[in-house]
Parts: sequence; structure tokens; C-alpha cells
Amino acid sequence: MLIVKKFGGSSVADKDRIFHVAERCAEEYEKGNQVVVVLSAMGKTTDGLLAKAHEIDPNPPKRELDMLLVTGEQVSVSLMAMAFHVLGVPAVSLNASQVAMRTTSAYGSAKLKRIDTERIRNELDSRRIVIITGFQGVNKYDDMTTLGRGGSDTTAVALAAALHADACEIYTDVEGVYTADPRIVPNARKLKEVSYDEMLELASLGAKVLHNRSVEMAKKYGVNLVVLSSLNRAEGTVVKEGAKMERMLISGVAADKNTARISVIGVKNEPGIAFKIFNLLARNHINVDIIIQSVGREDRKDISFTVARTDLQEAMTLLNENQSVTTAREITCEEGVAKVSIIGAGMLSNPGVAAKMFEALYSANVNIKMIATSEIRITVLIDEADANRAVRTVHDAFDLAD
Amino acid sequence: MLIVKKFGGSSVADKDRIFHVAERCAEEYEKGNQVVVVLSAMGKTTDGLLAKAHEIDPNPPKRELDMLLVTGEQVSVSLMAMAFHVLGVPAVSLNASQVAMRTTSAYGSAKLKRIDTERIRNELDSRRIVIITGFQGVNKYDDMTTLGRGGSDTTAVALAAALHADACEIYTDVEGVYTADPRIVPNARKLKEVSYDEMLELASLGAKVLHNRSVEMAKKYGVNLVVLSSLNRAEGTVVKEGAKMERMLISGVAADKNTARISVIGVKNEPGIAFKIFNLLARNHINVDIIIQSVGREDRKDISFTVARTDLQEAMTLLNENQSVTTAREITCEEGVAKVSIIGAGMLSNPGVAAKMFEALYSANVNIKMIATSEIRITVLIDEADANRAVRTVHDAFDLAD
Repeated sequence: MLIVKKFGGSSVADKDRIFHVAERCAEEYEKGNQVVVVLSAMGKTTDGLLAKAHEIDPNPPKRELDMLLVTGEQVSVSLMAMAFHVLGVPAVSLNASQVAMRTTSAYGSAKLKRIDTERIRNELDSRRIVIITGFQGVNKYDDMTTLGRGGSDTTAVALAAALHADACEIYTDVEGVYTADPRIVPNARKLKEVSYDEMLELASLGAKVLHNRSVEMAKKYGVNLVVLSSLNRAEGTVVKEGAKMERMLISGVAADKNTARISVIGVKNEPGIAFKIFNLLARNHINVDIIIQSVGREDRKDISFTVARTDLQEAMTLLNENQSVTTAREITCEEGVAKVSIIGAGMLSNPGVAAKMFEALYSANVNIKMIATSEIRITVLIDEADANRAVRTVHDAFDLAD
Repeated sequence: MLIVKKFGGSSVADKDRIFHVAERCAEEYEKGNQVVVVLSAMGKTTDGLLAKAHEIDPNPPKRELDMLLVTGEQVSVSLMAMAFHVLGVPAVSLNASQVAMRTTSAYGSAKLKRIDTERIRNELDSRRIVIITGFQGVNKYDDMTTLGRGGSDTTAVALAAALHADACEIYTDVEGVYTADPRIVPNARKLKEVSYDEMLELASLGAKVLHNRSVEMAKKYGVNLVVLSSLNRAEGTVVKEGAKMERMLISGVAADKNTARISVIGVKNEPGIAFKIFNLLARNHINVDIIIQSVGREDRKDISFTVARTDLQEAMTLLNENQSVTTAREITCEEGVAKVSIIGAGMLSNPGVAAKMFEALYSANVNIKMIATSEIRITVLIDEADANRAVRTVHDAFDLAD
């Protein structure tokens, strides 16, 4: 078996944790398996490097920032190789250049394009554990790039796909994927299995267990993902195609409080206006979520949508500066909102799921501001203050507890 | 003009010093020159990384140690690029992989083999300052290597040679090369010029201005070296072929206190014994300096030599464990010794230089334990306690003061 194991920054934050990870990987190796380990930078290293950069340059060139940040994972992998050396297990560390982890050129948010697996295969065939820097790559200019937040998950999945690994294990500080955030819903249940699509909806809706792009890539290449705890031996959650949903209607409830609503009011009712508005935002790297369009008065319409709260200021500035493009009469926004969603392949064949959710929210006296649905998800926008109560109410209504 | 400028770790230790270096390089750039900057790791970074490694593994694999250490210079160069960005000067940082700084495979003490200058040339042609990681390279396996202590000087000279630079400026915390260590001889004089060979002898004899391998390489490729201060604008010392010695007999006096004497007494007087002894030490990476052999009694001879004090313990252990190889009857050593040397091309054509040095030492009541000479150097081994006095006395005798 070939297994890719990914550990985040907190799992390698100090000497003890590094040895803890090394011992766990050594066990796998000693069963006769081939082991690839993907690591993030230790603890708060990346934040420390960012602080150093900003001390010099409040607005550092992204290329140079990536050149700086990639040193973080290189420190992790070399120290991990030393820990394996102490344990007497042959191991070798490799950075993104050495495994030709090719990406696009978008510094800070590069996308993986291809991996040259020859070196890794050779090292594995020599019975070495291969430790690879997560989060980073090289572009066509041979310059260092980073994949953006959570990029190490993507590195691990991409390696698992390229190496046709038998499993890709993502070690986190939770035991797996739950029907809801256990801090909000104490009796939330851990899922044994979840499908890629459900995981994608969960990830994009605030269940921060896996990076979204890593799930997309796992789905595309059929990589068997396992989410499990780096702290204990509890069984994790398997993410795979056609995961049995244990005859559950829905697999989980998620809340996302990092959200804000923007309404562009009274735009001209002519073709291309929506495109122009969202293109303006996309060109400035602002992601837009739930979109609702309603017809207003006098051949004018209103368009509302949500953005990450951190993008709100920039989005408002952009929209206000481009009134000639948007043709809007007024632009309003609201910060104190949250998205609450239910996710589940089961709802496809079960009419009345939405009604059941809305009923639960009504009975809990939660006002719904916007609604958006996909094939396996229903999302409502509500007051942030109601979010936790809404999650608990909906979780109960669908009988998701242990 | 194409100028390579090398700055050591203390010159980039913090934000202020980074900007100081950037401003100085920007001035050169604004004169219309092409500028390549070679940097070491910031301040005590390398020591910090070594400490991290040793916390995990008291005896880390050298390959992994190099993988760890090279991150230090990468941090320096990316931060320096940000400083240029703040100053509005186009600049780009490159690491050893990116400039294909090919070395031998000897981790921790790799030797440079060749540099691919295409990327550097392209960046210079685009009117960018190019900032390159010193001290490091990549071997034929694409693994990271380091060049050993002082390796950044060698990187700078190698780049100057490969790029046919007009000058290679080494910035240090002294103003240039002196006739003696100014801390010992307050009226020591700064040399305007010195030849490669003299610089080599000075460097190997404790004048820690330049790394020896960098001078050897400068000599081989005819690189014009300039040693100057990173702190002020004083004129430095030019190291070049056929430097005018200003009709000076000798160019300087150097002392090296990191030395110890070993005597291998009563070895068999047969061919190959000396080879066997020094081969034993060389295989264990112990450098041997002054060697003296004298005939003893009963067809036996004594061999004395000096080693770095840090190697003494290991050398003694090796020699004692291999008595069958050395055939020695006794092995003795002495720690409290120092080498004092005079260096100068002038002594080639001036008989009586040695006599003058010995006379000066005699008049100062300094006892000479061993003597060794090369074409441009005379070295004596004396008690360490006498070293500073000996340097001052000899400096006076040859009238080297300002």
C-alpha cells in the first residue's frame, strides 16, 4: 500500500509533536507500506514570516512573499527527516523544486498543474519515507509559488492522485467530519463516510476540516480521502464517491459567520449587467456566494449577494467607484449575518427537506433573509446572533444527534 | 559595469541594516551599473537553525542539515527584494536552485562546479538588481548543499567569475586588509592593494577577512576583489594579481591562536610512514598545518605538526587508536601555542627577512618552537601567551605602522 499522510502546522509545532508524527508514520512504514508525508510550516511560522515581511514592506511583491514563505515548510520537512533518522527509519525530505511541483504563476494562490513523480518513486522504491513540503510549488519561470490558505491539503491530494496512492490521510485536530460543529451542537455525530459533493458543500460552508480545492481534486481523480485526528487513534471520516449515507436524509448542518450581504439596488434591467457587476468583483479576486436577483420598479432590478466579511470593504469601494458600470441607484450592505446550510445527497430524492428546515427555523423564531439551494444543499442567510440557535434547531429537526 | 556585492549576516541582521544595504546597492544601480547582491543568512539565523536541528537529532544527517540551513539565506534575499521594492528599485531574489549553482555532493562542505548564468543575465538585462543566496548550491541529485563556513564569499567570487564582473566587492565589518590585526597592533596600516597569494597566506593564518577558497577562486579566474566596510565609505583593499606592494618588504603580520601541536615520537624510519599518518588524519577531515620531521635515535624519527585546536581531541584519539599504523612510541601534544607569520611577496628577493624576524622575536624574549616557510611566508610556532607581543614586535621591526 502507498499512503499519503498530511499533517498541519500545529502537528509539527515542537520537538515532541514532530516525534509523535514520526512515530505514527514509522508504524505505517514498518507494516511494509510506502509512506509519503506532507507537512505544513511549524506552528505559527508562516505568521512570523509574514510579520517579518510587513516590517520591511507593508505591501510586499507577491513573488518575493512566496519566496519567503516557502522556507517555512522546508524547515518542517528537514527537521522531520532528522526525527526519522533518530528513530532509525530511512527518510528523505524534498521541496517543491525537487519534486517539480508545477503550478500556475499566480503567486499566493497558485494552482497545481502537474507533479514529476520519478524522484518520489525512486525514493519510495529504496524503502525511504518521503517527506514533502506542502502548500508550495514552482511555476514555469522556476519561481516559488504558494497555493494559498489550506494549500497543504491540496498538495497531499495531488500527490495521492499522481502516485495512485491507496489512501490520502488528512490529520487534523478534530476526529473527522461531524453532522455539525461540536462546539455549537454538543451531541453532533461523527460521520463514517461522506461523499465528495457533500464534503465540498460542507467545506465551503464553514466546516473548516478540509480545504475546498483538495476535495475538488480528490473528486476529480477519485482519491480516497480520510479525515482523522493527529491526537488519538479514533476512526476518522472517509470521503469518497458514492459514500453510503446510512440512509440519512442530510449529512450535516454548517454555519458560516464570515459573511456579509451586499445589495445593488435599482440597476438597469438590460442584458449583461449582472455579468459586469460580478466580473468587476472577480477581477479583484472577490468571491461571491449566494446571489439573488429580483425585479424592482421601472424596469430596474435589485441584485443581492454575499461576500466574505473580510472582502466587504473592498467590494463596497469597487462598486461605489464603478457606478457607471453597475448602473445602480443605491448600494447597501449588512455585516451581522450568517449562512446556515444543510447538506446531503439524500435531499435529492426527498421532497419537503427545505420545508422541514424552514419550519424548524420558524419554530425557533429565526428570520430568513435570503435562500439559496443546490442539488445537495439548502442555505439560508440569517442574523448572525441567531446562527448557533439555528444550527441546533435544524440539527434536532433532522434527528442528526448521536 | 557589472558589480557583485557580498554582504555577511551581520550586515542584514535587522530592518535598518537591510535598508542600509539596499540603499547602498541602489546608488550603484542608479549610476547605470548592473548589480548582483550576494547575501548570507540574517544575523544568528544559521546558529538558530543548527540549534533546532540538534534539539531533534544530536547527529543530524548532513543532507537534511543542508536542506534546513539553506532556508536562512532564502529569507535574507526575499526580504532584501522587498526593501528594494520599497525604494522603488526593480529587484528579484534567486536561490541556488534557480541559478543552478551546481556543486559537488559533499553536504556541509560542497565545492562549486558551475553556474548557469542565463537567468541572472536576463534579469540584469531587464534592469533588475539580482539578489542571490550565498553559501549554498545544488548537487547532481538536485539536493541542496552548503559550502561550509564563509561560503558566501566563494559564492560571490564564483558569480563574479561566471558573469565576468568588473569587480567583486566583499563588505565586512573592517575597512580592508591590514598589516596586522588592529586590535593587537593599534597603529597597523590598511593596505591599498595585496596580491592573491599574500591574501591567501593572510587568510589561512588567522586574518579572517576573506574565506580562503574565495581567494583561490578569485586568483584562478582573475576576479578583482575589493574588501571594504559595510559601515562606512572608506576606501577598501584591492586584491589582485601583481598588486604593487608599494616597495614593502612584507605586507602583513598575522597570528593564529586556534592551533595546537602534536608530536608523533619514535616512528619507524621507513618509507610511507608519513603518508600513513597524514592520510589517517585527512580521511577524518583533520587539516594539518606546519609539519616538521627530525631524525631521532635507533633509526626512528619524530614528526611534529599543528592542527586546529578544535580538532586536537579527535586527532589524538585517532593517532592513539592506530599505533600499529603510526608505529609511534609516544604521542604528545601541546595546546597553548600560536602561529605568528609574516607574509609578503617582497621577501622572495630579500634575503635576511627570516633573520630579521627571528632577531625581533629574540629581542622580545619570545621562544620559537617550530619554523615553517613558503615562498612568501615565514611562520613560527610560539607560546600563545607571547603571541600579541610577538605580532607587535615584528610589526615594528618591519616598519609597517602608519
